Amino acid sequence: MTKRLDLAIRGGTVVTAADMVRADVGISEGRIVVVADAVEGAADEIDASGLWVMPGGIDSHVHIAQPSGPDIVMADDFTSATASAAAGGNTFVMPFALQERGTSLREAVEGYRALAEGACHVDTAFHLIVSDPSPAVLGQELPALVKDGYTSFKVFMTYDDLVLNDRQLLDVFAVAREERALVMVHCEGYDTIKFMAERLERAGKVAPYYHAVSRPEIVEREATHRAISHAELVDVPMMVVHVSGREAMEQIRWAQQRGLKVYAETCPQYVTLTADDLQGLNMEGAKYVCSPPPRDAESQAAIWEGITQGVFQVFSSDHCPFRYDSPAGKLNPKARTSFRWVPNGIPGVETRLPILFSEGVSKGRITPQKFVELSATNHAKMYGLYPRKGSIGVGFDADIALWDPSRRETIRQEILHHGADYTPWEGFDVVGWPVMTIVRGRIVMRDGAIVGERGFGEIVRRDHSAYASPAAAA
Amino acid sequence: MTKRLDLAIRGGTVVTAADMVRADVGISEGRIVVVADAVEGAADEIDASGLWVMPGGIDSHVHIAQPSGPDIVMADDFTSATASAAAGGNTFVMPFALQERGTSLREAVEGYRALAEGACHVDTAFHLIVSDPSPAVLGQELPALVKDGYTSFKVFMTYDDLVLNDRQLLDVFAVAREERALVMVHCEGYDTIKFMAERLERAGKVAPYYHAVSRPEIVEREATHRAISHAELVDVPMMVVHVSGREAMEQIRWAQQRGLKVYAETCPQYVTLTADDLQGLNMEGAKYVCSPPPRDAESQAAIWEGITQGVFQVFSSDHCPFRYDSPAGKLNPKARTSFRWVPNGIPGVETRLPILFSEGVSKGRITPQKFVELSATNHAKMYGLYPRKGSIGVGFDADIALWDPSRRETIRQEILHHGADYTPWEGFDVVGWPVMTIVRGRIVMRDGAIVGERGFGEIVRRDHSAYASPAAAA
Amino acid sequence: MTKRLDLAIRGGTVVTAADMVRADVGISEGRIVVVADAVEGAADEIDASGLWVMPGGIDSHVHIAQPSGPDIVMADDFTSATASAAAGGNTFVMPFALQERGTSLREAVEGYRALAEGACHVDTAFHLIVSDPSPAVLGQELPALVKDGYTSFKVFMTYDDLVLNDRQLLDVFAVAREERALVMVHCEGYDTIKFMAERLERAGKVAPYYHAVSRPEIVEREATHRAISHAELVDVPMMVVHVSGREAMEQIRWAQQRGLKVYAETCPQYVTLTADDLQGLNMEGAKYVCSPPPRDAESQAAIWEGITQGVFQVFSSDHCPFRYDSPAGKLNPKARTSFRWVPNGIPGVETRLPILFSEGVSKGRITPQKFVELSATNHAKMYGLYPRKGSIGVGFDADIALWDPSRRETIRQEILHHGADYTPWEGFDVVGWPVMTIVRGRIVMRDGAIVGERGFGEIVRRDHSAYASPAAAA
Amino acid sequence: MTKRLDLAIRGGTVVTAADMVRADVGISEGRIVVVADAVEGAADEIDASGLWVMPGGIDSHVHIAQPSGPDIVMADDFTSATASAAAGGNTFVMPFALQERGTSLREAVEGYRALAEGACHVDTAFHLIVSDPSPAVLGQELPALVKDGYTSFKVFMTYDDLVLNDRQLLDVFAVAREERALVMVHCEGYDTIKFMAERLERAGKVAPYYHAVSRPEIVEREATHRAISHAELVDVPMMVVHVSGREAMEQIRWAQQRGLKVYAETCPQYVTLTADDLQGLNMEGAKYVCSPPPRDAESQAAIWEGITQGVFQVFSSDHCPFRYDSPAGKLNPKARTSFRWVPNGIPGVETRLPILFSEGVSKGRITPQKFVELSATNHAKMYGLYPRKGSIGVGFDADIALWDPSRRETIRQEILHHGADYTPWEGFDVVGWPVMTIVRGRIVMRDGAIVGERGFGEIVRRDHSAYASPAAAA
Repeated sequence: MTKRLDLAIRGGTVVTAADMVRADVGISEGRIVVVADAVEGAADEIDASGLWVMPGGIDSHVHIAQPSGPDIVMADDFTSATASAAAGGNTFVMPFALQERGTSLREAVEGYRALAEGACHVDTAFHLIVSDPSPAVLGQELPALVKDGYTSFKVFMTYDDLVLNDRQLLDVFAVAREERALVMVHCEGYDTIKFMAERLERAGKVAPYYHAVSRPEIVEREATHRAISHAELVDVPMMVVHVSGREAMEQIRWAQQRGLKVYAETCPQYVTLTADDLQGLNMEGAKYVCSPPPRDAESQAAIWEGITQGVFQVFSSDHCPFRYDSPAGKLNPKARTSFRWVPNGIPGVETRLPILFSEGVSKGRITPQKFVELSATNHAKMYGLYPRKGSIGVGFDADIALWDPSRRETIRQEILHHGADYTPWEGFDVVGWPVMTIVRGRIVMRDGAIVGERGFGEIVRRDHSAYASPAAAA
Repeated sequence: MTKRLDLAIRGGTVVTAADMVRADVGISEGRIVVVADAVEGAADEIDASGLWVMPGGIDSHVHIAQPSGPDIVMADDFTSATASAAAGGNTFVMPFALQERGTSLREAVEGYRALAEGACHVDTAFHLIVSDPSPAVLGQELPALVKDGYTSFKVFMTYDDLVLNDRQLLDVFAVAREERALVMVHCEGYDTIKFMAERLERAGKVAPYYHAVSRPEIVEREATHRAISHAELVDVPMMVVHVSGREAMEQIRWAQQRGLKVYAETCPQYVTLTADDLQGLNMEGAKYVCSPPPRDAESQAAIWEGITQGVFQVFSSDHCPFRYDSPAGKLNPKARTSFRWVPNGIPGVETRLPILFSEGVSKGRITPQKFVELSATNHAKMYGLYPRKGSIGVGFDADIALWDPSRRETIRQEILHHGADYTPWEGFDVVGWPVMTIVRGRIVMRDGAIVGERGFGEIVRRDHSAYASPAAAA
Repeated sequence: MTKRLDLAIRGGTVVTAADMVRADVGISEGRIVVVADAVEGAADEIDASGLWVMPGGIDSHVHIAQPSGPDIVMADDFTSATASAAAGGNTFVMPFALQERGTSLREAVEGYRALAEGACHVDTAFHLIVSDPSPAVLGQELPALVKDGYTSFKVFMTYDDLVLNDRQLLDVFAVAREERALVMVHCEGYDTIKFMAERLERAGKVAPYYHAVSRPEIVEREATHRAISHAELVDVPMMVVHVSGREAMEQIRWAQQRGLKVYAETCPQYVTLTADDLQGLNMEGAKYVCSPPPRDAESQAAIWEGITQGVFQVFSSDHCPFRYDSPAGKLNPKARTSFRWVPNGIPGVETRLPILFSEGVSKGRITPQKFVELSATNHAKMYGLYPRKGSIGVGFDADIALWDPSRRETIRQEILHHGADYTPWEGFDVVGWPVMTIVRGRIVMRDGAIVGERGFGEIVRRDHSAYASPAAAA
Repeated sequence: MTKRLDLAIRGGTVVTAADMVRADVGISEGRIVVVADAVEGAADEIDASGLWVMPGGIDSHVHIAQPSGPDIVMADDFTSATASAAAGGNTFVMPFALQERGTSLREAVEGYRALAEGACHVDTAFHLIVSDPSPAVLGQELPALVKDGYTSFKVFMTYDDLVLNDRQLLDVFAVAREERALVMVHCEGYDTIKFMAERLERAGKVAPYYHAVSRPEIVEREATHRAISHAELVDVPMMVVHVSGREAMEQIRWAQQRGLKVYAETCPQYVTLTADDLQGLNMEGAKYVCSPPPRDAESQAAIWEGITQGVFQVFSSDHCPFRYDSPAGKLNPKARTSFRWVPNGIPGVETRLPILFSEGVSKGRITPQKFVELSATNHAKMYGLYPRKGSIGVGFDADIALWDPSRRETIRQEILHHGADYTPWEGFDVVGWPVMTIVRGRIVMRDGAIVGERGFGEIVRRDHSAYASPAAAA
């Protein structure tokens, strides 16, 4: 070895998206420089016997410090969110820089960067949210921002403050094509939800549960088909985020079979929760309000089908935390009058990987390699972080999580690090748990304790998505 | 490093089914013991600058030294076949031990082993061909052979000497389920082919081209559906070998979407040749006679769809070599009377990988990682060789091919090493070529020359298929 | 009117496959000669006020007086079967002339004709069952018989004495194409059933219920796909008889969407009975043993889908009656040892139409016009009886059933006329009942009583199927 | 017969949607009162020997006297349109009462009625076009109009002056459900067309041909899927009008297979014209500008598939006539600057039936009965005219067309009666031609000459659609 090793992880089983081998890993200057049957002579050593040495999780869908309407406050800033991420085995999170209508997208980016700089425990990079595709945004800001490494934009087909009409979607898609950016789409139909919500309200059906009723699978399917059609017309790759059930999944599979570059993400809530969880008494159901809403057991099975058949490339959290018992949270006074005012979103950056590991790997639904692909490698490839991030191999950043594959744990709010005051998975039993998180060779979490330094996390400049190339799908 | 390194491959780009990194590889006692940014101090060194260091190809479908009817002789013995394999970038081939009706399967295995022992340039392991599922074969021989590592059986739905009826197929499938073996199925319908062939002959249509006419896609699709149904009923994993076109591919995709463990293989002939190639004058078409026959451009596109969408797990050669200009080959006297007597099969073990590399990777249809998956890793996982074979990583056998990704070559018979006297790809231009093949740390091919020692190749005992486990499909 | 009217049906509502109008019907010399708002001056009059005047049912799938293995006797001769048919609102039945292996098909036809001549209450025509497609049968007998009006053949993919292999199926299909005959196929896979049955028996599972277990939907689906493939290859129209569930239905729909001339039939048992009915204690389950077996509620729904979406053209009974409490019937000594020896078949010619009327029309699933199409018109078109039979209109034979659409009735053995000693629908409540049946202008059933003369029924010579023409599907 | 016959049609072949028989038809007081082998003693007689006596065509999709933007004038008033209809074998047309934004729908209806009263040669009834679903329209006008017999509304998903957003579509659908009305939807996506059109214009692509380019099949498919989703959510039957190709057809078939009450219409332009027709030099392409545009040969085949498989219930003209060589027509000054200003629509009420007869019946693609179903019976059932209109049978209005099935004719502008100065089918050869049209027993067209009295046509009050009932699809 030419370089002096700063750290060796010894005795573990290294897992990549392809392989799983007994090997030691040697790290120098924050990067992996050697994988070998025995790595000796490092300045520091970690005993990983009995553990799985996996790429640190990349959570490509988290919301941090975004405004959420008047008087509603998100429960995480960049420090708490990234601490929570690290505790959950993640070494990278991708939050959003949200343009508010009438403002500059560039300024939005600068604002979010300012909040993140010096505040993070793990590395980050921002997606853009385009809520106002003005000529300036389309013509100047987006092209310039892509050149600066903001190579993915998210657009919404619902929400009063964010919804784009079809013309705006097409305009943004056209810019994405021109600049080789990846478009992420929240697929639910605004008008239909409004139509449903108003009818429910008129009928006095205002409890949190009716949030789910107001957004049935048809609403998601229709918007998914619409977005696919736009992407097909413009001929641009597209990512459908947080797919919740069979209807949307089958649209995406149909598109993929036609050879379209349509990619998809799903989340823990869609394989573990159901709409019935929103039925809790005394507003307890509000704890599960997110969009799209969780569905039912059959749609959970459909999502697993999509996972095992390759319809979904990435598994993210859609972390979007609100406090429950707070005037500015789920129980805010207005929220008590109707489901329409319950903030949409649940915390999940810390629980995403244990849930996928336990429900997927431990229950035999997916291989450890598939876990790595869904939790890290594909995120890195999808969003232009590869080959710097996303795997364990020579040259990659030493972003690593050590997992105890047989550790039994029960998810409880008291062991979590997020800013929310509850978890939707309270009492959920898992097998498999991350016991250490290492970012660029530095231990940031050990046995549930955040041991890294606030501000160690960097904001990373990204390249174009690997999924925009012709060979992407294969 | 605790062990002394025998060999270092330096300066290359290491490709696995997941990743592609600049790294050196260190080998000791035939196994990979280190992958690092720099590996020094090895007894021997190979300069791989500008080359891709890939897992040696595993060709899980080759026919060697099988009888092919009276007076017809296969053109390769184990020495020539494995030399040809090595020259084509392969480190492992999987031939068949063919039971002849009325004989013992165990004895067939011993016979083929005797031919292979001491004769091979690369490692091998045998699949079984069950042509006579007698009670003794089903009740004793097969279970015992699976325990001895023969964990895959091939059955045929056509050919006079090999065809099993549905009852026999089900009986074999039931044993496979019991013993956790993988069944490989040649899916073409015997009766239908016979019906077609006799009608063609009656009409005087006997030229080699009518071989293709006598086995249209419907015949393959029907048999594929039938085999899928049997596998679904018995609840056993199944591999459909050498899929040729859209009809069969769509049956397999349909089965996979229903959650069945149905896997599939395709071959170079189905993405590069067409039935028109059988139209050659003066029996030249006989050079392309194989079963199923090549189809047309549209079905080639369908096969690429299946490759990129994950319908196919493995890409093999179905190497089945006959001499063209020989009384015991394609031009045998009987063959001149009708397509029905032209030996079915074409040589391809040496050209499989260059064709997939060039048509797939160089033309941008697939990534280098996907090439590795299709050419090596999935074969190893599918047939119980993993994690000893199939990837480049610590602990794997040092079975490696060095590829020059930009080398232009034209396939010609004169540069090939097989026993056939022609190649169906004469004059076919490729970009990308294997320049060195290493088996368990030993160089066996360098720059087209076989430099290994005959007999270095070992017969490997296999484990159960990884694809028989619940998480297999993911 | 030029002709003297023998009979007028006055005051009813006339229903055809297209229309439903208040009209009188005038009959002369056995044929309908006038439909008018008022028909007066007939020699005889029937008051049809409040009744529906519908085409007499054509049951194109009934088994009469066939042998059923040694010592097993079918419970109906031509007299009782056609009395039962008439009582159930039918004016035409289509039994089978069954070739026994090693015998002449022509002689079989003559034999069955001899049994039917002078014995029938309603008109009939024979399909052929080809169990032994010898060169003589294929080359001479079948072509000659088609010319004589036997324009449909049935072939079996199961049953020891009847099963044809794929080659034989193809040979028969080829003759059908040549002679423009329609092939009817019993689609269940012989080998698979045998495989299943033997395993069940070995496990001691011999009760009647295991009949259903031994023939799961996969077995039917596979055979259906196989038959479709053969028909596609040969390019010949085909009728899949007695489809029982979603799996086979979807294969047929898939074929139809590809533009193939694949037609289908279903029966009352598949929309009203389930496999659970075979669970009856003390061999009671034997009363429901037929092939394919009834499935479950979900497959009933699938069959209704197929009916309303036009996948099925005809709805028949597959009447195949055996006595239950008889040494030569369902309870024969051998049958008590295993489900394999229970005669396959249930009586149904008398109950088919009330069940379809009640479950279809009265429950609002289908229109009265669709009832006519499924019960009469399409049978006539499918089997070459049209435009002599199958509708109410000028020039058609006066084959008419009068229905009381609101009459409530409970199906009970005691009110039926068949030779069986039980009905599978004992206690089944229906709304809608045939109160009179008229064959060629002659009343043969009135208020449940057979009033016609034995032997009035004629054997009709048929034309080619209208469904064999290009415009058939539309 | 109780009534005196005013007219007898003798010697012809009567065709209904189910049957085809040799019969005479007797008419009294405008209605059919007898169908018989011989009808004698009528006051008047028509010799129909060699002719087919078919229900008069119902064209449920024609535009008459609608405004088409500033300075653009439709080429037909009610007199010329209905004369043209009669000449083409029609006895009924269904034009639209178009609400202009900001105006009352009721007043629109009254306005159109005023234009039609006393002006028509054949019977008519109006659909409503809802362009401004204000609370008053949704809450009062629509419910009241449905009660008055306006039981179908058309809504548009495109066109500046007509487009409804999704919320408005849902509101209209909800009223339709409440009132049991049928919604007709023009499915093309407004925003997408605008996006495409502006890009084409910016690129200088302004010729008529680019009209087709600006509205590719994806645009129609997306809108079709969207409308289906809305109808599914609201649970209301829906008619997709003027379907042009495979993409939209397959969405509809998918919906139908899921059991949704989604119906569909297609038109002559989609089985005979292609986008290439818009390529004509010197603005000649403008003659073929309609929406959706004609596609290509493959989509014509797809439309035939949809016709023969029952995806389409009705075949209409979408008659929407403009003069070509007129400042207020296709060649208006603005139209010469860009395809966007070419009036959308082509004349076709007179040629619809000969085209369907010739391409369908004469070419063997459909039966004569299917022709009747597609051209008359299903229109009557779909739009609440049945059983007064739509068939030949006792009690129906005597709306009859006599067809010479073997007459060869060439469509030419000079033989047509519409107000347009061209026909898109100039020079199109047909076999089969309507030689007489009879409305309520009165001859209105004989041998191409309009012999009826202007104003004889009545405005008919309609009932609810028969397709809104549970048994509709069957």
